[in-house]
Amino acid sequence: MSRTIDWDGDAVVIVDQCALPTTYRTLRLATIDELVDAIKRLAVRGAPALGAAGALGVAMSARLHLGTADTTEVTGTTRATDAVGADAERLANARPTAVNLRWGVERALAALPRGAEAVTAAALAMLTEDERINKQASRNAADLVLRHCSRRPLRLLTHCNTGRLAAVDWGTALGVVRQLHAAGQVEYVLADETRPLLQGSRLTAWELEQEAVPYRLLPDSAAAAAMSMGMVDCVVVGADRVAANGDVANKIGTYALAVAAARHHIPFFVVAPQSTVDLSLPDGSHIVLEQRPAEEVTHVDGRRVAPEGARVFNPAFDVTPAELVTAVVTERGVLQVTS
Amino acid sequence: MSRTIDWDGDAVVIVDQCALPTTYRTLRLATIDELVDAIKRLAVRGAPALGAAGALGVAMSARLHLGTADTTEVTGTTRATDAVGADAERLANARPTAVNLRWGVERALAALPRGAEAVTAAALAMLTEDERINKQASRNAADLVLRHCSRRPLRLLTHCNTGRLAAVDWGTALGVVRQLHAAGQVEYVLADETRPLLQGSRLTAWELEQEAVPYRLLPDSAAAAAMSMGMVDCVVVGADRVAANGDVANKIGTYALAVAAARHHIPFFVVAPQSTVDLSLPDGSHIVLEQRPAEEVTHVDGRRVAPEGARVFNPAFDVTPAELVTAVVTERGVLQVTS
Repeated sequence: MSRTIDWDGDAVVIVDQCALPTTYRTLRLATIDELVDAIKRLAVRGAPALGAAGALGVAMSARLHLGTADTTEVTGTTRATDAVGADAERLANARPTAVNLRWGVERALAALPRGAEAVTAAALAMLTEDERINKQASRNAADLVLRHCSRRPLRLLTHCNTGRLAAVDWGTALGVVRQLHAAGQVEYVLADETRPLLQGSRLTAWELEQEAVPYRLLPDSAAAAAMSMGMVDCVVVGADRVAANGDVANKIGTYALAVAAARHHIPFFVVAPQSTVDLSLPDGSHIVLEQRPAEEVTHVDGRRVAPEGARVFNPAFDVTPAELVTAVVTERGVLQVTS
Repeated sequence: MSRTIDWDGDAVVIVDQCALPTTYRTLRLATIDELVDAIKRLAVRGAPALGAAGALGVAMSARLHLGTADTTEVTGTTRATDAVGADAERLANARPTAVNLRWGVERALAALPRGAEAVTAAALAMLTEDERINKQASRNAADLVLRHCSRRPLRLLTHCNTGRLAAVDWGTALGVVRQLHAAGQVEYVLADETRPLLQGSRLTAWELEQEAVPYRLLPDSAAAAAMSMGMVDCVVVGADRVAANGDVANKIGTYALAVAAARHHIPFFVVAPQSTVDLSLPDGSHIVLEQRPAEEVTHVDGRRVAPEGARVFNPAFDVTPAELVTAVVTERGVLQVTS
């Protein structure tokens, strides 16, 4: 399976991101319960991949409730379409910050009046589109990086995982690394380990190993020090939601990176599909930031590293104000913000 | 045992910091090899505690090589004093960044001409002095915090462990928290977990639980976000070495905190014994920064979290320039810097 998330005819199939980097395996999710659970425990994650998961989830629900044989008849069943609507809402709310999840759900739902096969076709088209969009966005961003940064080869710093494991395929910010690496322009990547769930260590490092891109993992708190030591030419990150003014919600730690990059005059690029932009939000203060369970911080791999009773501040995301962002790049080019 | 490090008459006894927070136990270190190993693997750590470890190590070496019975005769033995000198050098070099380790070694060595009992007495006097000094430094800093920060009760953010486990007793920056908590002035402490070795989760949280200080653990990368959300009134950290101009070497991540605190106009206090100040270094660029093993990042509790072959950037410390530090506070008061 080359795609991170796909459809096998009856169920959603994902690369199990909780098993990497030690085990590469796929999971088959045949019910909405299983899919919602996989989304919540981050077995599938990343804004573009969540868009695909939302769309495929609606397709699965439509097939379960409406059937696929005679669309004209079954689509008339109010109870069935209500059931799909309820599933769609559960899917869209499985994680609150990534706008793509709801976007994928709603785009698939729009095909519901035409029956389950139409919904499935719409979802599959979105998967194909996702790869094309991410390639274009990362190509646009790679061009911009080359224009902004004079040093060759480049030393890039990234956070969390924004590669093919965060999308249907290819990736966003890590897609930029792939573009630049293919062009022989990458000296190395500094990959933040990305606590608490270590997506940098578990996923980004794994992808960079697969692609033979030179890299070094680092504790998130060492990124600013690396910048101060002159080890970073630019920062490339993804986004989970971009407000109309260009404020960016992304994995916790992104804001700290942007503050440090600004101090060192290091360009800071956000790479994301246009579907990540939520024009209904005037600025980042309106973005709902998901709080994750305390156990992600008090335990590592199921083993306790903090005393019993420890309370935790564990936001999954933070908001980086537009003033700290050199550019938000999508498949359409550099984002034109409203303010 | 109330002290983190002490002398039992024949050996150095430490609280085993690798076993916390799940197990509180002491280790008895009867040879220089055992003591150096404990220092290297951070079973004893923290600048003040390392000063004590260095001094007690020299005392142990003097007793092993010179004996304790007849000091007049044995101190004349060149070979024996050379052996103590060699042990002292091994101890001082066990960790390169913390100036206190060498300071403790050299102060104890100064008593060597007067025999092993004199060295032991000098080392034990340093342990007693350490508690007094840290209490005075943290009292000075607590006064300064109360003058700088108007909100009551206070919300403090700290990094790594600077409590009694980092010293013979009491602590430095976490000593400030204890002072302020005793005065009823603490709403809560935000304690950075402090990757890679999680001294915040394992040690600081454990101490705060013991003292019943309200606290929340957070991923290091969430500290800047907490500041942006208005959750932090001041930052208090320790130091491993302070240069003559006020630049501060401290646990990796301190620099990132200072950059974020400056952006949010949050006072940033460094609390350390005067022995941490190294006037031989004009500024922070001359401080040697220890690189720690890759396994600290690629593994957690012995379990692999990164792919095979992953390379790592794992500096134990970073340097915060004096311009980002509101004050360096020692037992003598606010540090007067030379620049």
